Amino acid sequence: MRRGFHGSLGTSVSFSLRMGQTIFSSASLLFMSLGVEFYSYTAFCYLVTAMGLLVPWSLTLSLVDGYSVLVAGPVRQRGILVAVVIGDWILSMLALAAACATSSVIDLLHQFDGSYCPPKLCNRYQLSAVMAFLSWLLTTASTLLNLWLLPSL
Amino acid sequence: MRRGFHGSLGTSVSFSLRMGQTIFSSASLLFMSLGVEFYSYTAFCYLVTAMGLLVPWSLTLSLVDGYSVLVAGPVRQRGILVAVVIGDWILSMLALAAACATSSVIDLLHQFDGSYCPPKLCNRYQLSAVMAFLSWLLTTASTLLNLWLLPSL
Repeated sequence: MRRGFHGSLGTSVSFSLRMGQTIFSSASLLFMSLGVEFYSYTAFCYLVTAMGLLVPWSLTLSLVDGYSVLVAGPVRQRGILVAVVIGDWILSMLALAAACATSSVIDLLHQFDGSYCPPKLCNRYQLSAVMAFLSWLLTTASTLLNLWLLPSL
Repeated sequence: MRRGFHGSLGTSVSFSLRMGQTIFSSASLLFMSLGVEFYSYTAFCYLVTAMGLLVPWSLTLSLVDGYSVLVAGPVRQRGILVAVVIGDWILSMLALAAACATSSVIDLLHQFDGSYCPPKLCNRYQLSAVMAFLSWLLTTASTLLNLWLLPSL
């Protein structure tokens, strides 16, 4: 019953995925928060909220993974895995929605003259959206890898 | 091994889910296409593309479901179910992304004076986004119900 062993909770692959999520979502949060005007657009506030939820979640799970790799073995309790899969799945949808909303707003701001979107700010917003997309990709990978293990428990 | 039987491909629950998807995604497509200016915003074009993919997919699968309910039994081939789950999953993500992008653009158009968004057109766009959200919900439900059956095959 070792099917789907690699990448599930408590392995080193999972640890690197979680670290990537933490880094990308923190970067997205910082790029957006350092721009001063983010609270004037709903989509940007939503991105900040979603990333603000994703950062502590990924950080906690990367700590759990690190502890599992170094001290305890991989996590095999069904209840914990179900909770992690559901949390990952909800957060990945939030991240995807936030990334799409942000990029469509940036695209629209580009269409208007440029008075709404000075190049310096706009580049920062774009970087933030790209980071959000990357953190969505990694979160989805984590969800799928954990989900794959679930039926064999 | 009848776990997750209800709602999987070839049952009447699945048929009603597919019918709902077809109706909502067609409604979303029509509300957006009847507004004349949809091609001037990238997000609206994306919504039309995503819904244009979702309509034939849902329609085909609702026909398969109808045939299975009336003539043949429920579908139990592992390969077909895997293909349906993957297709559903990709289309549901496209629908979510399109719905979020559209609603954030509508929200932004509301903020600008109103010259960009006459109330009659804007209400139509909003209805289209709501329909896209509903079709996303139903597609996700189909994905989960089919996925649930997969390990027992």
